[in-house]
Amino acid sequence: MFEILSLKGGIDNVAGFYTSALNCGLRPDTQQGDLGFIRSKTLCNISAVFTKNKFCAAPIKHALKYGKSFEGNFILVNAKNANAMTGAKGIEDIEDILSTIPSEVEAINPVMSSTGVIGYRLPKEKIISGIKSLDYSAKDSNKLANAILTTDSFKKEISFRVTLKSGDSFNIAAVAKGAGMINPAMATMLCFIATDAKVPKEDMSEILSEAVDESFNTISVDGDTSTNDSVFLMANGESGAYDKEAFSVALKRIAFELAMMILKDGEGANKVVAFEVVGAKDSQDAKVAATALSNSLLVKTALFGEDPNWGRIASTIGASNIECSEETLEIFYDDLLVYSKDKPELDATSEEKAYKIMKQDSFKIKCNIGIGDAEYTSYGCDLSYEYVKINAEYRT
Amino acid sequence: MFEILSLKGGIDNVAGFYTSALNCGLRPDTQQGDLGFIRSKTLCNISAVFTKNKFCAAPIKHALKYGKSFEGNFILVNAKNANAMTGAKGIEDIEDILSTIPSEVEAINPVMSSTGVIGYRLPKEKIISGIKSLDYSAKDSNKLANAILTTDSFKKEISFRVTLKSGDSFNIAAVAKGAGMINPAMATMLCFIATDAKVPKEDMSEILSEAVDESFNTISVDGDTSTNDSVFLMANGESGAYDKEAFSVALKRIAFELAMMILKDGEGANKVVAFEVVGAKDSQDAKVAATALSNSLLVKTALFGEDPNWGRIASTIGASNIECSEETLEIFYDDLLVYSKDKPELDATSEEKAYKIMKQDSFKIKCNIGIGDAEYTSYGCDLSYEYVKINAEYRT
Repeated sequence: MFEILSLKGGIDNVAGFYTSALNCGLRPDTQQGDLGFIRSKTLCNISAVFTKNKFCAAPIKHALKYGKSFEGNFILVNAKNANAMTGAKGIEDIEDILSTIPSEVEAINPVMSSTGVIGYRLPKEKIISGIKSLDYSAKDSNKLANAILTTDSFKKEISFRVTLKSGDSFNIAAVAKGAGMINPAMATMLCFIATDAKVPKEDMSEILSEAVDESFNTISVDGDTSTNDSVFLMANGESGAYDKEAFSVALKRIAFELAMMILKDGEGANKVVAFEVVGAKDSQDAKVAATALSNSLLVKTALFGEDPNWGRIASTIGASNIECSEETLEIFYDDLLVYSKDKPELDATSEEKAYKIMKQDSFKIKCNIGIGDAEYTSYGCDLSYEYVKINAEYRT
Repeated sequence: MFEILSLKGGIDNVAGFYTSALNCGLRPDTQQGDLGFIRSKTLCNISAVFTKNKFCAAPIKHALKYGKSFEGNFILVNAKNANAMTGAKGIEDIEDILSTIPSEVEAINPVMSSTGVIGYRLPKEKIISGIKSLDYSAKDSNKLANAILTTDSFKKEISFRVTLKSGDSFNIAAVAKGAGMINPAMATMLCFIATDAKVPKEDMSEILSEAVDESFNTISVDGDTSTNDSVFLMANGESGAYDKEAFSVALKRIAFELAMMILKDGEGANKVVAFEVVGAKDSQDAKVAATALSNSLLVKTALFGEDPNWGRIASTIGASNIECSEETLEIFYDDLLVYSKDKPELDATSEEKAYKIMKQDSFKIKCNIGIGDAEYTSYGCDLSYEYVKINAEYRT
């Protein structure tokens, strides 16, 4: 038995971690910051999950020199420039930058994490001058949470205290940026999770991968996958406490809540919809169908229009090439059955109910394929005018 | 040698074919018609290519009773109701409707083709009363071309005269509807092609499949595939003329031009862009990458914003999971190189050129993967506010 308590604030709650950010001139037009860090005063076990994009950015290639799990204590983060498609020079830039971290910080195996536009070299001098000015003993995760945002409309941080049956407790906290390009294979998403739990090396990667699969990998804003997606977990063991199950539950909850925050903040999105596929032949089919629904432009625009046009749901499932039949299919909006083989067309009362369901900020669209017992839930959002506007205009 | 000449008008130019349409009350708010037909006075070889959607509509299931190639002389077409997800009753409705074609029409193996909303039974009485009023000796393809449109903004018909070396000639013409849901696996697209060429049975399906693959299957408006997509080819042999190569070239040209018209009329679209992938490892990789580009929301919004943000092109290729490397990749806008490993960042002059290219109504984005010699071209359009509006509001 264990207890999970939500705390106010973010990584500041985790023993031995320091965070801050400042403006080093990457986006001179705002005061929200563009360069920040997360450090632990003691050595951490670190594990990471990175984008599967073949053109993964220079910071990911650099971090991978240490492997997906390594020991370290320092992550530098910048906004506005992804340092992607910058070749070997992009990696050299990172090495040059990280070599200027002040020696009193005692950074061990420092890595970098970047978000922003693809195809431009990092403005090295600005970042190096920023590195000199950062306050490495600050606990100011609010600054960091703001500095890493791009098209996000609100900052994303979260923290929990986990109390074990023994009475021992540890804290876990995270900060993330999301918005566009969120897809079932991750996103232009950066997420940094810090804990003072004493997580053993051999548990790190397994627990993190599971948590990412059940959270960030189930959401889709627009079906694209970026060059820079990264989730880092840093555990410094300062609390001395640990329980595998409790830690896993807390980590999964943090990741899922952040994923929902990212989806809710999907560019221009107004609604979060759970696409629950049940009764599929196998788990592969369930996942393919659920993902097709959360990615379909026609479904997304119908959500925005609040139109209970279940034909688009059916058509998308039919086009997803899974095993299915209109004889066995059932479609529900929340608990309202809108299609089954023997159901008559929606009458005025049901149509009215369906419209009401679609007006909610979040609801469920459930499809029972009716031929097996595999299920998968994917989370999506609507496609609004605002999405098109943000993405037509985003670059400089 | 042969000559292909564009004619004014559509199927009216083809000997022995009759077309017309009227308003039978399926969309009482307009005068553009909602029910039409194509008939040949003599028996035709007919071949069809249908959607791969697992929930293909009742008219397709009904037509497939005759197989993908059969003999017949009559197609009835309606707008506003797709007769999809209507089960066995949907097929019975078609049989009831087709049984009321006046006997003097001498319809043999008549079929139906429908477009519109999914999930509602056909208004049988309205259609049957319309069938009684149609003028079966009319040559009025303009009426038919208008009656089958849904969200299209212009009608799509086209006709050619093909003159063979011998001096013999035949005509070929087509009418289509397109707009939303256009995807590399076809579309909510109906296309009817009529010819008086004497096409032998054994050539019909082969030539039609090739033509569809090289045209409708290379375009994408929004990545969705409908329940009703159908392309019919009817050949009545009235001209007595035929040459396999000439016919194949003419059919492919008609199909490609219609596909481009459909793309240009993609819902709310302003631009047609050719995504040419060359230098891929194999043809599968080339097709996957080209299709990923024409389907990417982030690429489509960048096209709408006329922003030469080649990073999104690179990111989409990297996410498509084909074999590729940033060492060998090259990206061109028309003939302007915007990315290669050794190319410096775009200078002001090149940036200016790129902006100019993107302002055109149509242009090419070419990606050289640089590791093989396979290529594929996919055609896409931009994603505009208008697309979201049309699809948020479309149903009733």
